Amino acid sequence: VNAEIITIGNEILSGRTVDTNFAYLAAQLETRGVPVGQHQTVGDQVEDIARALKTALARASLVIVTGGLGPTPDDVTRKAIAQALGRPLALDHDVLESIRERWVSLGGSEPMPGNNEVQALVPRGARVLRNTQGTAPGLLMEEDGKAVFVVPGVPGEMRSLTGDSILPWLDAQARHPVRYLTLRTCGIREAVLAQRLAEVPELLPDCQVAYLPSIGGVDIRIRLPEVDAERVAEVAERARQEITGRVGNYIFTEGTDSLERVVGDLLLEREYMIALAESCTGGMVAARITTTPGSSLFFEGGVVSYSNRAKEEMAGVAHELLVEHGAVSEPVARALAEGIAERTGAAVGVGITGIAGPGGGTEEKPVGTVHIAAVAPEGKAHRRYRFPGSRDGVRERSVTASLDMVRRLLLGIDD
Amino acid sequence: VNAEIITIGNEILSGRTVDTNFAYLAAQLETRGVPVGQHQTVGDQVEDIARALKTALARASLVIVTGGLGPTPDDVTRKAIAQALGRPLALDHDVLESIRERWVSLGGSEPMPGNNEVQALVPRGARVLRNTQGTAPGLLMEEDGKAVFVVPGVPGEMRSLTGDSILPWLDAQARHPVRYLTLRTCGIREAVLAQRLAEVPELLPDCQVAYLPSIGGVDIRIRLPEVDAERVAEVAERARQEITGRVGNYIFTEGTDSLERVVGDLLLEREYMIALAESCTGGMVAARITTTPGSSLFFEGGVVSYSNRAKEEMAGVAHELLVEHGAVSEPVARALAEGIAERTGAAVGVGITGIAGPGGGTEEKPVGTVHIAAVAPEGKAHRRYRFPGSRDGVRERSVTASLDMVRRLLLGIDD
Repeated sequence: VNAEIITIGNEILSGRTVDTNFAYLAAQLETRGVPVGQHQTVGDQVEDIARALKTALARASLVIVTGGLGPTPDDVTRKAIAQALGRPLALDHDVLESIRERWVSLGGSEPMPGNNEVQALVPRGARVLRNTQGTAPGLLMEEDGKAVFVVPGVPGEMRSLTGDSILPWLDAQARHPVRYLTLRTCGIREAVLAQRLAEVPELLPDCQVAYLPSIGGVDIRIRLPEVDAERVAEVAERARQEITGRVGNYIFTEGTDSLERVVGDLLLEREYMIALAESCTGGMVAARITTTPGSSLFFEGGVVSYSNRAKEEMAGVAHELLVEHGAVSEPVARALAEGIAERTGAAVGVGITGIAGPGGGTEEKPVGTVHIAAVAPEGKAHRRYRFPGSRDGVRERSVTASLDMVRRLLLGIDD
Repeated sequence: VNAEIITIGNEILSGRTVDTNFAYLAAQLETRGVPVGQHQTVGDQVEDIARALKTALARASLVIVTGGLGPTPDDVTRKAIAQALGRPLALDHDVLESIRERWVSLGGSEPMPGNNEVQALVPRGARVLRNTQGTAPGLLMEEDGKAVFVVPGVPGEMRSLTGDSILPWLDAQARHPVRYLTLRTCGIREAVLAQRLAEVPELLPDCQVAYLPSIGGVDIRIRLPEVDAERVAEVAERARQEITGRVGNYIFTEGTDSLERVVGDLLLEREYMIALAESCTGGMVAARITTTPGSSLFFEGGVVSYSNRAKEEMAGVAHELLVEHGAVSEPVARALAEGIAERTGAAVGVGITGIAGPGGGTEEKPVGTVHIAAVAPEGKAHRRYRFPGSRDGVRERSVTASLDMVRRLLLGIDD
């Protein structure tokens, strides 16, 4: 099976609404080993929808269409599908009855508006898929070994129909499920990672290796072969070893956990509390750490010591250090980390001071210069970074780098 | 001009990454009155990209392609574009030089990996568009009255190239540009806003009123008629008056400024410093305020007093208050605001304490209960909120509410 997806709706095409349905559907299909070959977004016009469907059916054996099934005149998906597939629409009396029942059960004391009835129009020969979350049913049309699913665009309804109808249909077609191994890295650039792993594709000929970069790091995703579970586990283990042997220090987790959650788990295991003294990141590290529910078990608190006065008064940085070395310096970063750990009694302290820009840079300390320091029972660490990018980029990278410094310190990983 | 957009990338097609670039681009094009006719997403295959581009060019006069410009072998967009447009690739020595400089300036002590050089390949006759946020430049190819822009898929780079190159190019094509009046609100729900402004569309027949909700508030966007500048200014002034007369207290700005920037400007005008004591928001208010460059001029610092001990020690909350009323209470919120202002010497202090969830709620103080307090030379304020939504949602809404409380306090707006 190979699939295409068509998203319908003027609100999506205008950029007013971000299309999250597509990513959801594609991810669900991928868990069943069904690759999506292409995705089209079209507006609420009969000709555009019909053309998109024909184009997709020429390439793919499964097409999923979402959106445009509502009761208002701009919902024309039914009409377009009927036209493209040459299956005239007819009123389905069972569907009409269930729409009426739904109207009443939702407390519609007035009679149901007539336009709701168009939702009971069904292309000839289509299977009607029950929608437990809304009025418009989904539709499935099969012919010549190809299948077209049509589901509403309301995310809750689309998800419900995916789980109730599309995935069971796919499961009925499949032999071996597709599995992935994901190794998440940070602190290493995509180009360097790819270079260090240059031989890996040859060593793992039955896998496909992909790099998924984001501002927080690069995920290495290995698509494992479609074989039985035992053999998949062997291949996964070999892949894990080959990759870990080359870039293991940069891998912070296998799977989907975030870096802040990994750091939180390390702190919990050791029964450590952490405290932060942030300057250029302005509270972003604290905000990130407290994203995790239950973070009060390992997060003591932090200060955002933006001004020099705050660095002295809130984190106990000596006035002389600030005068002698400047706020953005190794001694001040170290003093912030030590000061906040001492003041709060936390086992782990982190200090961050830097120039996020756009102003404030000098020749010696250009924009993007950030000093990060950490103290823990395991030891101390400091590093000077020079991050590229905008103010937001420098701040985001500083957050990742400081969390990664704590991870490495607790695990005893040298740079 | 009518446009199509092509998103490229296996990570998008697989559903691993939600494509936010498309909505951003479509919304930007809409501000220039350029409708997007269709959107295609294709994977990193030369033939698929080439075919998608040809299909789009057959329908639209402007095609924007994003993604697949990175240095790794799976980035094949350059090759595909060159093939589709019949413009062979050649190494651009200026681009190569700037890529090398960038590598060095980012602290690449190792020699640049050779694969970075592919980013200097440029289709014949293409205009190279400078990318201030990354390595791969954007490209513009014009022929037969049609234009193709190619920009990286990294959101920061795509946005930067949109602002620096695509929008100026569109502006250069326009006659009467489409103008919008945007009034940004917070603290009022979309349905309530729409109800209070129910008559406005009739009063402004030559305008189109749209509501753009986000988690931070609702923007009221008025599309003004395509007429000469003087007449547009008159219509805009009438629209401004009609809307401000009805919901003025909720409008924090006209235009695009963020709430944190508006609050920053109010503080700057008054020469006030602000200090924060955050609990459930975990540093998010500080992070938001320091998003604004130059925030050191009005932001003194803050504490993230997550534990009760931190509330006492960092913000000076009396132990008895915590015991008697609990951490999530009006007296503690007020004590946080007053304590942090006093300790830091800042004119304005804000205290936030609440239950973000998912755990920790009780019958009396359910998840979503947040107490926010502020002190300023203008007076004091406190409010108890009950926010809906997930942990992230409660935290985000708390950030907006606390910034808005400061705005109202400084401007003397009563609830």
